Amino acid sequence: MAQRPTVVLAMAPALTTELMTDAHRARLAAIADVPDAAPLARFDDARAGALLPQAEILLTGWGSPRIDAALLARAPKLRAVVHAAGTVKGHVDPDVLARGVRVSSAAAANAVPVAEFTVAAILLAGKRAFRLQRLYREVRGFRMWPREVPAIGNYGKTVGVVGASRIGRLVLERLRAFDFALLLHDPFVSAAEAASLGAEWVEIDDLLRRSDVVSLHAPSLPATRHLIDARRLALLRDGAVFVNTARGALVDGDALAAELASGRIDAVIDTTDPEILPAESPLYDLPNVFLTPHVAGAMGAETQRLATLAIDEIERLAQGAPLAHEVRLADWERIA
Amino acid sequence: MAQRPTVVLAMAPALTTELMTDAHRARLAAIADVPDAAPLARFDDARAGALLPQAEILLTGWGSPRIDAALLARAPKLRAVVHAAGTVKGHVDPDVLARGVRVSSAAAANAVPVAEFTVAAILLAGKRAFRLQRLYREVRGFRMWPREVPAIGNYGKTVGVVGASRIGRLVLERLRAFDFALLLHDPFVSAAEAASLGAEWVEIDDLLRRSDVVSLHAPSLPATRHLIDARRLALLRDGAVFVNTARGALVDGDALAAELASGRIDAVIDTTDPEILPAESPLYDLPNVFLTPHVAGAMGAETQRLATLAIDEIERLAQGAPLAHEVRLADWERIA
Repeated sequence: MAQRPTVVLAMAPALTTELMTDAHRARLAAIADVPDAAPLARFDDARAGALLPQAEILLTGWGSPRIDAALLARAPKLRAVVHAAGTVKGHVDPDVLARGVRVSSAAAANAVPVAEFTVAAILLAGKRAFRLQRLYREVRGFRMWPREVPAIGNYGKTVGVVGASRIGRLVLERLRAFDFALLLHDPFVSAAEAASLGAEWVEIDDLLRRSDVVSLHAPSLPATRHLIDARRLALLRDGAVFVNTARGALVDGDALAAELASGRIDAVIDTTDPEILPAESPLYDLPNVFLTPHVAGAMGAETQRLATLAIDEIERLAQGAPLAHEVRLADWERIA
Repeated sequence: MAQRPTVVLAMAPALTTELMTDAHRARLAAIADVPDAAPLARFDDARAGALLPQAEILLTGWGSPRIDAALLARAPKLRAVVHAAGTVKGHVDPDVLARGVRVSSAAAANAVPVAEFTVAAILLAGKRAFRLQRLYREVRGFRMWPREVPAIGNYGKTVGVVGASRIGRLVLERLRAFDFALLLHDPFVSAAEAASLGAEWVEIDDLLRRSDVVSLHAPSLPATRHLIDARRLALLRDGAVFVNTARGALVDGDALAAELASGRIDAVIDTTDPEILPAESPLYDLPNVFLTPHVAGAMGAETQRLATLAIDEIERLAQGAPLAHEVRLADWERIA
């Protein structure tokens, strides 16, 4: 690759308004040739026809058109796809990696806001703040609040993390600052590694039985579909808090809705399957559910961390250095 | 004082159900004589009449009856009041300190959950999660969520802390782990000390003008009553988040309600004046307000931190060591 590689941007402008600051653009221009500052939102128009043959690196973001073998034929100089967002599975065909194009993901930068959101949600859910906000609004008077909710407070509780993904590890790291006992289940992690993350390794059923809070951070894969089903939800303690900021498909949504409708457990749900719940879903209104529309990931200025990571990767490529966040074909089946 | 001092408990049992575990009771019994394990909820009955003359230390908690000069006459051996809760101003007359009785407060232990709640609330408010939860419930469909709320996300924002109290310092310490710029206003703190806390010292008006999030941690005193008034609220940026987990009297409640009703700013409010808002208060229903009924402080098992600190103090008294959390008469006018 040239020392000043030619970089073409591909993403949906409407979804990436705050991704790149002027400082990012200046830094990119200092290390690469960018024949057109405006990203390609599609690959089937004349502008794409002119830019793709020059592209050595595609800098992609949310809403990037799909990159597959047919696209490679139109971009013969392409050596790398650097994605300024999390998973690349939505727009990169694994064939592209098989043909030697290197792929990098900014999932590590996207993990930061997800972990922050998750830890904040765990703390407020432990205080039963979401329930109490609604109850206070309804009552508009005094109650002995701790008696109105399941066990209140964050002292000495057990938090179980399912999945030592980037996000799962960051969540554990942040949770260590609080007075929690930590459990971890991940089939690819040893008890010793869990201990080094501050957590006790346990089987998933034990994690569900023993935790006051369960937070999902496993990848969404065929093998993890409905990992949390009716049987496992029934293992949760009364008053437990179930947190999903990962992916909706990890959970049997009907079973979760039934368990939540009983009021036996609380939940913080940022991700569902389907992504937008049908209007009749009980999750919108249940007083024990704090439901948000998939916003834990990088939003607004938080997306600038993704651009910083991506431009760092382009700089490494220009210098012939190894990518720090390479997506490898060997890992494809078990990563998000 | 005897090496095994006689300790009498005074608090409201209904408010302190989870304060002392069996381990706390065993530890206390190992270092002190406790003639009656049941706390006094009042000082005017026969049980109090029998216990007060023996008391060298009063271990108090929420709902303790008032301790003043008249009470001292009935407890001639009393040397110390050790409070297993925050402020002592509700139940200890300053006369008691003037007469040489030493007083200790567990405010430092109560600061922990308040700081945790505050930081969690700052993070979720920055993500506009409270607004988005309500909006999603209303819409029950897809929106470009970042466009529906003021600037979303926690990257590079400025958080202004008013008051370098125990809680204010803990909040700053925890906030340093995130990508925030930090401002601090406290009339008793120098710019150098603010810098050592990771914050830039600014005048309060500047803090209100420059912050994306403002969090109050000043003591409630005559001098700080309505510290945040209509003029200062008007200095807040559009879309700013105002957080009060301190005391309602720090803020002109009518001015705050008016500012919030305009929708110009968001707020997280755990403390109000009066403590329970009238049923017609707009704060209950405004979509830009997350209102909770004063639950940020120690609740449930979190109160055990208060008992641990108080028993540590009793151990120090028994050993003739200095109190670690002594309340001094000289500070009375400027502490919470």
